Amino acid sequence: MIYFDNASTTKVYPEVAEIITKYNVEKFFNPSSLYLPAINVKKDLLNAKEEIKKCLGANQQSQIIFLSSATEANNLALFGLCKKGKKILVSQGEHASVFNTANELLNLGFDVDFIKIKSDGKLDIDDLKSKINNDVGLISFMNVSNETGAINNIKEISNLIKTISPETIIHCDGVQAFCKIYPDLKNTNVDAYTISSHKIHGPKGVGALWLKPNLKPKPQIWGGGQENGLRSGTENTAGIMGFVTAAKKMFENMKNNYIYIENLRKNFIELLKIKCNDWEINGSADENLPHILSISFKGIKGETLLHMLEEKEIFVSTGSACNSKHIGNRVLQSMGKLKTQMEGNIRISFSETNTLKETEIVVEEISKCVHKLRELNY
Amino acid sequence: MIYFDNASTTKVYPEVAEIITKYNVEKFFNPSSLYLPAINVKKDLLNAKEEIKKCLGANQQSQIIFLSSATEANNLALFGLCKKGKKILVSQGEHASVFNTANELLNLGFDVDFIKIKSDGKLDIDDLKSKINNDVGLISFMNVSNETGAINNIKEISNLIKTISPETIIHCDGVQAFCKIYPDLKNTNVDAYTISSHKIHGPKGVGALWLKPNLKPKPQIWGGGQENGLRSGTENTAGIMGFVTAAKKMFENMKNNYIYIENLRKNFIELLKIKCNDWEINGSADENLPHILSISFKGIKGETLLHMLEEKEIFVSTGSACNSKHIGNRVLQSMGKLKTQMEGNIRISFSETNTLKETEIVVEEISKCVHKLRELNY
Repeated sequence: MIYFDNASTTKVYPEVAEIITKYNVEKFFNPSSLYLPAINVKKDLLNAKEEIKKCLGANQQSQIIFLSSATEANNLALFGLCKKGKKILVSQGEHASVFNTANELLNLGFDVDFIKIKSDGKLDIDDLKSKINNDVGLISFMNVSNETGAINNIKEISNLIKTISPETIIHCDGVQAFCKIYPDLKNTNVDAYTISSHKIHGPKGVGALWLKPNLKPKPQIWGGGQENGLRSGTENTAGIMGFVTAAKKMFENMKNNYIYIENLRKNFIELLKIKCNDWEINGSADENLPHILSISFKGIKGETLLHMLEEKEIFVSTGSACNSKHIGNRVLQSMGKLKTQMEGNIRISFSETNTLKETEIVVEEISKCVHKLRELNY
Repeated sequence: MIYFDNASTTKVYPEVAEIITKYNVEKFFNPSSLYLPAINVKKDLLNAKEEIKKCLGANQQSQIIFLSSATEANNLALFGLCKKGKKILVSQGEHASVFNTANELLNLGFDVDFIKIKSDGKLDIDDLKSKINNDVGLISFMNVSNETGAINNIKEISNLIKTISPETIIHCDGVQAFCKIYPDLKNTNVDAYTISSHKIHGPKGVGALWLKPNLKPKPQIWGGGQENGLRSGTENTAGIMGFVTAAKKMFENMKNNYIYIENLRKNFIELLKIKCNDWEINGSADENLPHILSISFKGIKGETLLHMLEEKEIFVSTGSACNSKHIGNRVLQSMGKLKTQMEGNIRISFSETNTLKETEIVVEEISKCVHKLRELNY
């Protein structure tokens, strides 16, 4: 099996699986209980928050709220930080968990506007400038696009926003960036930042929202008052400890992984240039996160290609799994892509567990499939 | 270690831990992805729903929504099923995840009223009758009390409610009942039922809301449209498969476990009668779920007793862990208990993994501690 769909989800690291088992069968105590073994688990959770902050380059005084997913984190950021009577701005390139939440806020009567993205997949700064003002209570844009790997410079953009409107709360979805690039949050004007566990070889069912000190979103889940009253429910201790174990490993190897994956992508592109014609990269390969590569092949259907590759036990996607049932691709459409370009799209997403040999095999198989499909279609 | 705090959380079964590892490192695919190994995981999740329905005695056409906790399930039931302009009724004996959510609905302007509970911990049916009418859109009461083990007859109560007000939606928190007694939901008038994984030797971070066919709560988390659009976010596949594995084992052994635990409790009470005086059971031991035993010792503080037992590696609680930081005990207070009775309370909660020998040791140690504390205090 060759798994090139790491932007969708990842295989859990063996040491992460071990930690999960440990907290399930040994340190299984309820962190709210009053006796020492439970208090120790509570301490482990607090230490986990400090570790996560290090991966984010965040101040110690800032906050981490552990949640059940990045989707929940994005929902908490939007529902919990939006201000009555104030505008909400969201980029057109956002993941469904931001985009559809913004649409729900629109349904609820909030004034929501969408910022354009450019043909390279990045936020359109001119459009942003034309829409940002003191009436905007909350803005949400992603650090790295899950569709194309396009990177938004969160430092520059957050500075720009706060210069124009100091009171606007800035939320970034950092799911595809986390432990792949360094957000260095303490040196940005970002107020809230979403991260996920299962994109970095941690378990599914765990995400977090980072928040600047003293910023308190309105809770969306009420009950026993866990997570400083901001998110009730018994903590998913095993999942959280698995998450932080994965994050620490990814963070320690971040630079090496980046160089390694950059080389995988370079190799992939160079080989594809030799083996196959009439394709284009969506976004700017040179500036994008190397982990994600969105390609449109002329004259074929991405989904057909996906299923042909599947027969060779090669797994890729046609874009966000969270969007897989929808017709078309909203993000590529916002980048100005034509219907045929959207249809002919596949997304390759690398992990440091992939090899150069795998890229060679995948390029070879993609080329064969594309040629075959074109012969049938033309 | 003797762990008598199983109503707070439980140790994950070894076979459950194995399944979790399997779905983390082998079957780690995103169930929304389009290729076969991912589709197979999706099928596993659908089969898991059928298994859970069997444990509930529910119709095949009914629905299971997997969520991150019972707290989230209770929040979804209340926020998602309440009706604008209609009243909400909640019992005073509810867990914080229902009680505090009801209070938040009150803050939001909803008309919320609370139904009394009796001195035995059960719902006060007379008070219920006086408050139920066609203006009530939603009622929530628990199947089994997490504080006392008091059982509400959900069949009789739901029939009564629907006779008076057929349109009222009935939600039951079944967390402490699930896989311990058989709710036989198809033969009740209950519309929604909350269950949890980590109370039955499954992992934390997983719960579910059962719903009658066609009943659609308003989603509380928006995004990729998972769980039939009712709860977005990549499914916690490993956690869910762990949950269903635990549920199947618990359900298969339900009757034997019940008899076994009933005997543990009987033994515990008989020995305590011999060894210690001036204590009382909160609720009716004969009618309660045997898994939970709430006892108030005269003239001592439950928390002091808890910490003395902790030194002997015996772990009990002073009530709901989700309530551990709060002063007093709201549920015992609603049962009409005095301040001294609430202060002198500990909760013993059994699992089928506990032994008769353990009950003997715990009674012995409790008696010693109680005598010592009384000598010091008197």
